Amino acid sequence: MKAEIIAVGTELLLGDVINSNAAWLSKELAQLGIDVFHHQTVGDNPARIHALLDHSLNRPAPDRPEALIFTGGLGPTQDDLTVETLAQYFKTPMVLDAASEEKIRSYFIARDMPMSKTNIKQALRPEDAQVLLNPVGTAPGLLWDVSTKAGQPTYCLCFPGVPKELYAMWPQARDFLLQKMHDAGETPTVLATKFLHFFGIGESMLAEKLADLMQQSTPTVAPYVGRAEVKIRLAAKAPTQAQAEAMLHPVQEEILARCGAYYFGQSGTSGETATLEGCVASLLKAKQLTVAVAESCTGGLVSSRLTDLPGSSAYTRLNVVTYSNDQKARLLGVSSDTLAQFGAVSREVAAQMAVGVQKLAGSDYGLSLTGIAGPDGGSDEKPVGLVYIGLVGPEGTPPLTQKILVNPRYSRVDIKYWFSQYALHSLRQALTGTLVPDEEAAIPA
Amino acid sequence: MKAEIIAVGTELLLGDVINSNAAWLSKELAQLGIDVFHHQTVGDNPARIHALLDHSLNRPAPDRPEALIFTGGLGPTQDDLTVETLAQYFKTPMVLDAASEEKIRSYFIARDMPMSKTNIKQALRPEDAQVLLNPVGTAPGLLWDVSTKAGQPTYCLCFPGVPKELYAMWPQARDFLLQKMHDAGETPTVLATKFLHFFGIGESMLAEKLADLMQQSTPTVAPYVGRAEVKIRLAAKAPTQAQAEAMLHPVQEEILARCGAYYFGQSGTSGETATLEGCVASLLKAKQLTVAVAESCTGGLVSSRLTDLPGSSAYTRLNVVTYSNDQKARLLGVSSDTLAQFGAVSREVAAQMAVGVQKLAGSDYGLSLTGIAGPDGGSDEKPVGLVYIGLVGPEGTPPLTQKILVNPRYSRVDIKYWFSQYALHSLRQALTGTLVPDEEAAIPA
Repeated sequence: MKAEIIAVGTELLLGDVINSNAAWLSKELAQLGIDVFHHQTVGDNPARIHALLDHSLNRPAPDRPEALIFTGGLGPTQDDLTVETLAQYFKTPMVLDAASEEKIRSYFIARDMPMSKTNIKQALRPEDAQVLLNPVGTAPGLLWDVSTKAGQPTYCLCFPGVPKELYAMWPQARDFLLQKMHDAGETPTVLATKFLHFFGIGESMLAEKLADLMQQSTPTVAPYVGRAEVKIRLAAKAPTQAQAEAMLHPVQEEILARCGAYYFGQSGTSGETATLEGCVASLLKAKQLTVAVAESCTGGLVSSRLTDLPGSSAYTRLNVVTYSNDQKARLLGVSSDTLAQFGAVSREVAAQMAVGVQKLAGSDYGLSLTGIAGPDGGSDEKPVGLVYIGLVGPEGTPPLTQKILVNPRYSRVDIKYWFSQYALHSLRQALTGTLVPDEEAAIPA
Repeated sequence: MKAEIIAVGTELLLGDVINSNAAWLSKELAQLGIDVFHHQTVGDNPARIHALLDHSLNRPAPDRPEALIFTGGLGPTQDDLTVETLAQYFKTPMVLDAASEEKIRSYFIARDMPMSKTNIKQALRPEDAQVLLNPVGTAPGLLWDVSTKAGQPTYCLCFPGVPKELYAMWPQARDFLLQKMHDAGETPTVLATKFLHFFGIGESMLAEKLADLMQQSTPTVAPYVGRAEVKIRLAAKAPTQAQAEAMLHPVQEEILARCGAYYFGQSGTSGETATLEGCVASLLKAKQLTVAVAESCTGGLVSSRLTDLPGSSAYTRLNVVTYSNDQKARLLGVSSDTLAQFGAVSREVAAQMAVGVQKLAGSDYGLSLTGIAGPDGGSDEKPVGLVYIGLVGPEGTPPLTQKILVNPRYSRVDIKYWFSQYALHSLRQALTGTLVPDEEAAIPA
């Protein structure tokens, strides 16, 4: 099957809204083995929607889409006319859908909000179309088989433009498309994809270690650069989801055997992600350990990330942001001599900060960062992008430190984020027994 | 003039990349008074690009675009064939552009990187096209007047798909389009837009206060809901940028006269934004004051946001995240009796935290937050989304507190962000003498 994705909305053409739905739908369709050759965006304008339908439904044979997937233009106002225009195009009367009307009425009653007449407009559907109920909003969608009217297999699917409503309504539409593929005797080809997330290793080094795997075609193995991370995408096609997923397992195991020291989690396709803070939180909880963080240049970002997870009170008691030298000395007991001799941004101060915060908080681990996030404050000896990370563990051993250099051309906010990644990475390594201290790591541009 | 935006790239059709360029270009074109009726995305496929050109250049009269703006497909690999395909379509030979070749060579020499033969492919251009130099990458763009070949005014503009390269190259292309409009005797209509940013007031309340202004057509005044903020968009058209901008001034002044207590900044169109932390940082620096923050549920987010700005050491010395009750007592001197009587999430504890951190840091202001970010830990009396904010100023007056309720259905990360907005908002109000303590604010869903 082939599909075309059509976004309707003048706000898209004015640039007020970025069309993220097209990418989301494309991923979902690729998973079903449905090809997408075109995305289009058109305004809330019946004549232009008509012209678009004429063009798309008359593409030459191998490119003609069976499924036209519309997003947007389902709202209650007069501007919203996707469904109405489709009904006109296929010369089909509109009828009031009883279930939709009831659902819209109860939505407003439950919220004690007045309902306008235009809201009822949303309950209209072409007489032979199937309504796609919206569990998170008022605008119902549409599943409409217009094959008879079009003279060949043709399906119109309509979704609201609001992403979360589209996501919630998609499973019903997916089943509709799978059924149509089945009816047409198409062997479904399901694509399973998975991302493995890595930090502390560059894309080219990872690609080198996995070169042989990247050359094979099933499953495909490809590196992607994320924000302060590298992802490896695994993908395999098979007749069923379970079979496709099973094909990913052996290659995933092989990759982790080679590069597990840098691996912090996996994610699927639908907006899911893996984070270093999530990985560290799981490790701390499993081991019933606590950590205290002393930050300087990162200003609380590491602390904030560690508390983005529910239940973070299990491992967080106290974190501090000692921005001034004065406070590093007073609160954390960093020696004034050390500050004077080596400067605040130094291996020695990082070590004393880690020990100091561990003591202050009474935590199992003490983690510290001191660096230069820029854009000002750098020197030849201590450039923007330099950070020292200190880490002291529960065993009474001396603190370990790492010197890190991040690309100084990144923005201040990005440099803070990279620093926080390195700190969480060090903690992850310590918790998994893979920490290598005194390692100078420079990130490629 | 009318333009059509065409993205080329199979990665877009697979959903691996979101097409944000179309929205960015649409905004820029709207500012020049250029209408955009269609966005399209097509793969790296010459036959489909040909078909797309045929269709777009043969749209009926009022819709036919003079400018076709391409993004993507300018890279060094064999997949990248936008320019080559355009040359074939307009039956024009490709020649090696000397300046581009030189620039690409020196790019690789400067980076001590080997250059492959395919990199030189990027220096090819249709013989009568003008190269658009790329200051931040290797792929040059193209400005190509094909009016003679097409038999009517027609311009092809090609940009790389990498957003920052597009942004850097756009000014030259804008001048090219303005010149073409001028040559055609079109009176340019420049659109000036501006966003005013507000917090602490809901969209409907803001709209009510500005109802009369929103009904006028010049300049247009429209509310937009952002992430934990409301923006008012002002827009006016005039023959020049200066004239259009001048039209915005009186209405901006009127809006600020009515709603200035909630206003924290303004932004333009090109990715610029205004933040509460930026507003607070400017106020603190101007008054040469410092602040110390004691956080609980926000875990360091307020501290991190306050240090996202260059030069934040001017007003930040020490911030603490006292996550446990124990640490609130030990480090900040919150009374154990108060904790036992009112609980950690209480007005009384917020007040003592603010005073405690002001004393600990020796700062002018002390700011505190204690609340429930969820998803667990809420009760009927103290639900998820509840936060108390404490603030104590330099004048020796008692601390002020605020009780805030945020929509409990938001995610934990969003609730943290809303809490941090309220804390920064309180500080902004204190610094501008508009703080109203003990105000219970509930945010609409």
